[in-house]
Amino acid sequence: MSFPDNFLVFKGTPSGKIVGTSVPRKKPEGAQVLVEIHSSGFCYTDLHYLQQDMVLGHEGAGVVKELGPKTRYLKIPFLARNVSWCLTMLFHKYYSGDRVGFGWCHDSCGHCDECISGNGCHCRVDRHQFGTHERDQGGFASHAIWQEDFLYPIPDRMSLEDAAPMMCAGITVFAPMARHGLQPTDRVGVVGIGALGHLAIQFAAKMGCEVVAFSGSESKREEAMQFGACEFVLTPRGSAEKIMMKGKLLNHLFVTSSTLPKSEGWQPFIDLMASFGTIYPLTVAFGDISFPALPALLKSLAFRPCAHGSRLMMLQMLEFAVRHGIKPKIERFPLDEAGLVAAQERLLKGGVKYKAVMEAKV
Amino acid sequence: MSFPDNFLVFKGTPSGKIVGTSVPRKKPEGAQVLVEIHSSGFCYTDLHYLQQDMVLGHEGAGVVKELGPKTRYLKIPFLARNVSWCLTMLFHKYYSGDRVGFGWCHDSCGHCDECISGNGCHCRVDRHQFGTHERDQGGFASHAIWQEDFLYPIPDRMSLEDAAPMMCAGITVFAPMARHGLQPTDRVGVVGIGALGHLAIQFAAKMGCEVVAFSGSESKREEAMQFGACEFVLTPRGSAEKIMMKGKLLNHLFVTSSTLPKSEGWQPFIDLMASFGTIYPLTVAFGDISFPALPALLKSLAFRPCAHGSRLMMLQMLEFAVRHGIKPKIERFPLDEAGLVAAQERLLKGGVKYKAVMEAKV
Repeated sequence: MSFPDNFLVFKGTPSGKIVGTSVPRKKPEGAQVLVEIHSSGFCYTDLHYLQQDMVLGHEGAGVVKELGPKTRYLKIPFLARNVSWCLTMLFHKYYSGDRVGFGWCHDSCGHCDECISGNGCHCRVDRHQFGTHERDQGGFASHAIWQEDFLYPIPDRMSLEDAAPMMCAGITVFAPMARHGLQPTDRVGVVGIGALGHLAIQFAAKMGCEVVAFSGSESKREEAMQFGACEFVLTPRGSAEKIMMKGKLLNHLFVTSSTLPKSEGWQPFIDLMASFGTIYPLTVAFGDISFPALPALLKSLAFRPCAHGSRLMMLQMLEFAVRHGIKPKIERFPLDEAGLVAAQERLLKGGVKYKAVMEAKV
Repeated sequence: MSFPDNFLVFKGTPSGKIVGTSVPRKKPEGAQVLVEIHSSGFCYTDLHYLQQDMVLGHEGAGVVKELGPKTRYLKIPFLARNVSWCLTMLFHKYYSGDRVGFGWCHDSCGHCDECISGNGCHCRVDRHQFGTHERDQGGFASHAIWQEDFLYPIPDRMSLEDAAPMMCAGITVFAPMARHGLQPTDRVGVVGIGALGHLAIQFAAKMGCEVVAFSGSESKREEAMQFGACEFVLTPRGSAEKIMMKGKLLNHLFVTSSTLPKSEGWQPFIDLMASFGTIYPLTVAFGDISFPALPALLKSLAFRPCAHGSRLMMLQMLEFAVRHGIKPKIERFPLDEAGLVAAQERLLKGGVKYKAVMEAKV
């Protein structure tokens, strides 16, 4: 099988424009795997790195093309390894290597408490992640090289374009539901019906929960109900105004809005919570989270900002999504400079419904 | 059996001085119970109500003296009901009614989700509690009338003076340990070695955990280790300074200091937490809790301010304490005006080691 000698990667630049660059091809070493990227989600978090000299994109999905000598479980069938590039493209399904996805976390120490309990993405010793490690690899590229341990086989019944956004947006909402005791009898709120929120509604609804969608935009009502919400609540403009919810109090609240409420802005949501409930601010915020202490104490409420899931949760999330027909709703853009600029503009305007996915020509 | 026609209660006054007042005796109605108060803890929270026209004290322990017609399980033996007051005092153990304690919560609706799951102290409909309800009853009194449901039988092997502080300080630290998944293999931090902290160390240690005590005062080191800590960490004066802990990261952190850290003051503690851990601010605070969002998100940490336990937890806490020899370390004061003033002064100076308990002459 022949590869191009150079790979194409899209990096941030000081001006904030994403620029494509040709880089020499690398060979996977040790337990590394070379992945040909077919789809890559454009996450709001990528925008924080636009001016960095690094390859962007951390929601990738593609096909295994080459295996390092110490890989253990990913496969490339004989034909895919030995027939021409062209034939592989034509008979993709039969001649390709494993279909895999990759997300925010790239590698971990393998030996700390978090790692040996399967939570390498929370490694306390050597957490390799987007933005700080392997800055020469990313989802906005023709190819990328990753550790086999942090690649996730995509189920047959899931397309790679649907899989890509699951690698970050999907796991971000699924992981706290799986980890922190969501019960099918719980009433669950989702604040913000966007990239994360539209998946959170679907997951919680299919887990058996009664889901309430909160949005500042009436235009989200119909789709929120289609995603599986049983109640849509229009949040008032004034941040501290009472929120009128019809049903019973909430046991879990997933906050996925583009910015988090400040201080007294949390009060209306605290009022909607049942005791012992948990509020999960899932939005990446760089300042403080401030909430009124006494109202939270009287209900024994927790604020648990979180991100990432375990490797097992990644697989469970993909399997659960396939089994229940959960899909991201996506807008497609070509994975090239023009496509990235267009996606970036749509994201900044807040207009994407609901995930921007870059599609490679393969 | 003869009762005095008037009871003595100690109330707040506009000047902040606690004053004793004689009030006409009430008869218990319905499922109410008349309790003769023997011991009453003086909690820091009482100080917030010093200027209110209400009976203070919410950590009481005493003896059942009279039962309303609809009570169901508390008892007064035949002799206690029929022999003279004097004889009852002499042969306390055999002639007294049940020994009971009472705490912050007095009554609840009995029918909301929290109530029917045994969490009446978190009732969402009609939570009767210290400061807002039954302001004519309290622990700083000769007698008090309470609902039978919110009285807790004290185990034989626990003195009433030890039981009193368990009704608030004890349950405040025990409840989150019981409710939020403390494992015997966990490493647990306790910040502030005072009324709550010295009990938190004992409970967590006897639950099998490795306990780390944090204090700004070197003088607490020896006693913290005696209470069951395995490591004592002197916290630096600068609130954002790195804290030097020797052992592994913490899974739970109970914060019982008189004031809570502010914003960047949480960072040194976040640094000491293992992923998925929980920080429990147990201090009653009237402002906001603010913590840096991103460091908490990267570890999926929760901040869960909390108070109160279920009725079952109250009984479990008392039984656990007796079985493991867990006791509050107390300073005794007479339950009269002079005693209350003395205790109040000691509390305000922060000098009490570790719980002030008012003792009635009975």
